[in-house]
Amino acid sequence: MKELVFVGLGLNDEKAISVRGLEETQTANSVFMELYTSLLPGFSLERFQTLSRKKVAMVSRRNLEEENGVVILEAAAKGKTVFLVPGDPFVATTHLSLRIEAEKRGIRCRIVHGASIISAVVGLCGLHNYKFGKTVTVPFPENFSETPYNVISQNKKLGLHTLCLLDLKTDEQRFLSVREALESLLAVEQKRKERAVTMDTLAVGAARVGSETPLVKADYVKNLLEYDFEGPPHSLIIPGDLHFMEAEALIAFAGAPKTLRDVVR
Amino acid sequence: MKELVFVGLGLNDEKAISVRGLEETQTANSVFMELYTSLLPGFSLERFQTLSRKKVAMVSRRNLEEENGVVILEAAAKGKTVFLVPGDPFVATTHLSLRIEAEKRGIRCRIVHGASIISAVVGLCGLHNYKFGKTVTVPFPENFSETPYNVISQNKKLGLHTLCLLDLKTDEQRFLSVREALESLLAVEQKRKERAVTMDTLAVGAARVGSETPLVKADYVKNLLEYDFEGPPHSLIIPGDLHFMEAEALIAFAGAPKTLRDVVR
Repeated sequence: MKELVFVGLGLNDEKAISVRGLEETQTANSVFMELYTSLLPGFSLERFQTLSRKKVAMVSRRNLEEENGVVILEAAAKGKTVFLVPGDPFVATTHLSLRIEAEKRGIRCRIVHGASIISAVVGLCGLHNYKFGKTVTVPFPENFSETPYNVISQNKKLGLHTLCLLDLKTDEQRFLSVREALESLLAVEQKRKERAVTMDTLAVGAARVGSETPLVKADYVKNLLEYDFEGPPHSLIIPGDLHFMEAEALIAFAGAPKTLRDVVR
Repeated sequence: MKELVFVGLGLNDEKAISVRGLEETQTANSVFMELYTSLLPGFSLERFQTLSRKKVAMVSRRNLEEENGVVILEAAAKGKTVFLVPGDPFVATTHLSLRIEAEKRGIRCRIVHGASIISAVVGLCGLHNYKFGKTVTVPFPENFSETPYNVISQNKKLGLHTLCLLDLKTDEQRFLSVREALESLLAVEQKRKERAVTMDTLAVGAARVGSETPLVKADYVKNLLEYDFEGPPHSLIIPGDLHFMEAEALIAFAGAPKTLRDVVR
């Protein structure tokens, strides 16, 4: 049967895959994996292969983007093929074109979902999901853009929080840090003066979400700039208006300053 | 050790839990579960107990909201306790107060994330995650509110998509359908005339996300009203401006009318 199953690896390590995702892998004819769209810092390919009892073929950005995933499509045309992707498979838009091409070729596609940073970081810091506006990615300085600042500013005008995903280049082992992201936003603030991200803005940094020791810290930007979030990956949230329960959650789960209680309505 | 581990059950059935979540359950002293904040239509408690080799105590809304989860807190004060929750544990805000109370009592809290409708439905229909605005829940007619319409209207003005979660009352086996949600939005349209949701608006309905046979259908509201999405749970997306790749994805994955190609920029 021509079949391509996109399986989410979830966050951090090889045991974040769902029981069903593992079963699909164990019963596949061919198994492919990419680890370049996100960093899973605790992931071991060797341990995953032991767990799944399968030899996994790693695919590169080049295999997928320049060669249009032809190696995966050819395997899927012969029999059940599993493609393992960090997080939930289509939160990054990278693999949508592979799925469109597979459907065109008459290959049945299925998705086995995994945990995503999108929902995980929200829960970890205790902010309310329905109070988030548009999400944005903060790029590396060489790809500097004012878009993240604009998104934060627009969300704030509506009282909404902004989840900022931080760019990464896994092939170069480069991962944008909370500090670098804040510096990039402050640079735009200097020009625009909309007060969307100043030294006195409350922000929440998170590191290694999904691991056994995730780090979440809420504080004013001037303090977060000095805070050591240690190893990647990092994420950043710029809150909009806080509900008093959200302030309590940030104090309890993210070590936010208790003075936060005085500023929420 | 005083420990409370919130474990996400993911979507649809008992095999959506992560391998780590299952291991945490297998090694816990006490295991609790709630199934009232979301519907997992393929879930079997019996199969889950076989899988986890644990007796699971079900907790009700009353146990958690009126009695403040005291039964869970008392177990966690004695040893490692796992609390199993549909989806990703804190996407619904319901359990944040339990976590705050546990932290106050010196109980260490950890989270094992699960797949959430928030990321899953986005990927399933092929829309781009970073183009979603604020999420909203559409309530039952007896709790009618104009908020969902307002959120959609505001998001649309910004060109953004809106994910509408549909209300449910698991104890009464009542689940809002795509049709009911659209009718509720059209009722507001009649008064407000902002053209946020008309008969000619493109919308995307999804049912049983996370199952082996999820149903996703994109069409104009007038057609979706007649479409049979079958069993619950349902979700609804009202797209804002579409990127041409999003239009292609809706055509390929959600059977959207091909005329959509003519309207995207």
